[in-house]
Amino acid sequence: MSLQKINLQKPLVHCITNYVVANFTANGLLAIGASPVMADAVKEAAEMASKSNALLLNIGTLNEQTIKSMLLAGNSANVKNIPIVFDPVGAGATNFRLETTMEILQQLKINLIRCNVGELAAIAGVTWQAKGVDSGVGELDVAETAMHVANKYNCLVIVTGKQDVITDGIRIEWIVGGHEKVTKMTGSGCLLSALCAAELASCENAFEDLANLLRDYKQASSNAYSTIGTFHMNFLNQLEYLAEGHQ
Amino acid sequence: MSLQKINLQKPLVHCITNYVVANFTANGLLAIGASPVMADAVKEAAEMASKSNALLLNIGTLNEQTIKSMLLAGNSANVKNIPIVFDPVGAGATNFRLETTMEILQQLKINLIRCNVGELAAIAGVTWQAKGVDSGVGELDVAETAMHVANKYNCLVIVTGKQDVITDGIRIEWIVGGHEKVTKMTGSGCLLSALCAAELASCENAFEDLANLLRDYKQASSNAYSTIGTFHMNFLNQLEYLAEGHQ
Amino acid sequence: MSLQKINLQKPLVHCITNYVVANFTANGLLAIGASPVMADAVKEAAEMASKSNALLLNIGTLNEQTIKSMLLAGNSANVKNIPIVFDPVGAGATNFRLETTMEILQQLKINLIRCNVGELAAIAGVTWQAKGVDSGVGELDVAETAMHVANKYNCLVIVTGKQDVITDGIRIEWIVGGHEKVTKMTGSGCLLSALCAAELASCENAFEDLANLLRDYKQASSNAYSTIGTFHMNFLNQLEYLAEGHQ
Repeated sequence: MSLQKINLQKPLVHCITNYVVANFTANGLLAIGASPVMADAVKEAAEMASKSNALLLNIGTLNEQTIKSMLLAGNSANVKNIPIVFDPVGAGATNFRLETTMEILQQLKINLIRCNVGELAAIAGVTWQAKGVDSGVGELDVAETAMHVANKYNCLVIVTGKQDVITDGIRIEWIVGGHEKVTKMTGSGCLLSALCAAELASCENAFEDLANLLRDYKQASSNAYSTIGTFHMNFLNQLEYLAEGHQ
Repeated sequence: MSLQKINLQKPLVHCITNYVVANFTANGLLAIGASPVMADAVKEAAEMASKSNALLLNIGTLNEQTIKSMLLAGNSANVKNIPIVFDPVGAGATNFRLETTMEILQQLKINLIRCNVGELAAIAGVTWQAKGVDSGVGELDVAETAMHVANKYNCLVIVTGKQDVITDGIRIEWIVGGHEKVTKMTGSGCLLSALCAAELASCENAFEDLANLLRDYKQASSNAYSTIGTFHMNFLNQLEYLAEGHQ
Repeated sequence: MSLQKINLQKPLVHCITNYVVANFTANGLLAIGASPVMADAVKEAAEMASKSNALLLNIGTLNEQTIKSMLLAGNSANVKNIPIVFDPVGAGATNFRLETTMEILQQLKINLIRCNVGELAAIAGVTWQAKGVDSGVGELDVAETAMHVANKYNCLVIVTGKQDVITDGIRIEWIVGGHEKVTKMTGSGCLLSALCAAELASCENAFEDLANLLRDYKQASSNAYSTIGTFHMNFLNQLEYLAEGHQ
């Protein structure tokens, strides 16, 4: 249902994302009927954001120029009430990523943070052993921390993993299912963040529609299950299939 | 026929293109027997262009450094009569893209502009409602405008869409067929521009051979028809298949 | 055997690599159970390298910023005895690449150079006709030259091609087999370099384990043989399959 709404509305999603997953993100958005546009030059970021239906900020391969562009695009989106999804990739992996994450959260009004548990810990200031851009290991009450972050930054928070959780700081919902093979496909979290941006551009009820999107995404990974090369192909097939209203 | 010539001559195509489609472009060129080389540093763009058989300039994720590199590479190619294909991705989407497009067209001798109808409108100065890097909507006599642009910049122009058109400013030819699913594969236009560059490096008669290339490309998309993940795989299979002389 | 060790140890591999193959490299590392992290900002390269199990430096789309990052990351890895694999993509294609290659070899302690024969010639100062980032043509005693380079830079050298060779400057071993179709898949050499980095992070005996990795890689390409789109999918499937201990 959630993907179908996107497919009907075909929102334009401005992505400032990392070069590792840019192609996969574009193809995933196209598979569900959305229109991706990638533009990270300082000279055009604000203008492109102002003409889009949603903005995705992803710090997976950040540098000093793209941080400037993210802030310019974010301010431009905020002025026009265009929803912003923030994906703080590897927030706990280096000081540079953590500082950038905090700068973005402080300077912009973010509608949704989509992260893994290690990134949530970094944002919340909890001690955690990160492993690059993977979740890493540590002790954390995910629900409590996610609600705390949602309240602090007045936004929705989605933390994905074996179980996904979504919260607006008051309500909380867990989504189970899916197949862990999805974690062997680079950018699976990044693409989900982009689809969330498309959802926020298309939905009536953000919390419920995003929860449904998480269910669809888990279903796509279950349906795609195979060896990893075939899984990639199947997963895009499934996204398109679900967006067209099949079960 | 058109792809087969490329497969026999195996031209080296220097691509200054966007990071979203760089991998797909390289794989598409390799599928038809051409050799891609990506090099966008200011310090090597001119030298790499001078050693290549064709140059592709694509502004899909432009920034101030890559614009400098495009101009340096383009001048270098012009000096040695190496053909240049220009793909003005999203020319109408932001002022920065339009200014860059005009700078490239004014400073370089371009052999072929390969664009969609929205980008054609931007180049011709026609009012148009762009949607990111997609075609967008508006009123335009595509044939007349393409011929005007071809005459103004003394180059070939290919405008792709449901029907493709190619013109040298005097002759004009329409190519029909293909499958619209190709538009759900990011970089399908960008790859076509790269294949056109390989064609210009390999052909005897640019107009006719490019028209044949457009036919091959449409045939590949028809033959590849499937759900979108499978379509990606099939499309590369088909390019290789056609380049090897199968029907 | 070689890939299985990686799959058990799941090393974190910091890749400073080109944007053409970043996605494919990440997916190839994930397929064999390793964790990729891409980070090329000057402000975080050293820190990320210091927290990783291996470092890959690949100059496929180098620029002045990424060269700085490579040197910073490399110094950081050297201090902590973290193994470094260097992939001098297109070292002979432009002066900028050759100068960068020499700067890296002079300033850093490299554990393994993984290159093609044209790049080997460039490093050794042998006259050679490069073709972009492909091998090109010329006369070279590959074994003798590889041993010379291995001795000069006190490192392992792997030169891949129709036959692969590995040397530590004293021992030398040739690996045959595989399918040439692998050269039609962009980044096949770049991914191999990344897998070598994962191997160096996981192995007991570098020379023997890398030779086994070369055998596994050739087996994967033989097993994957198909038209090129299907080959891509099959190849990732095969890497995962071999890493899981199947034959």
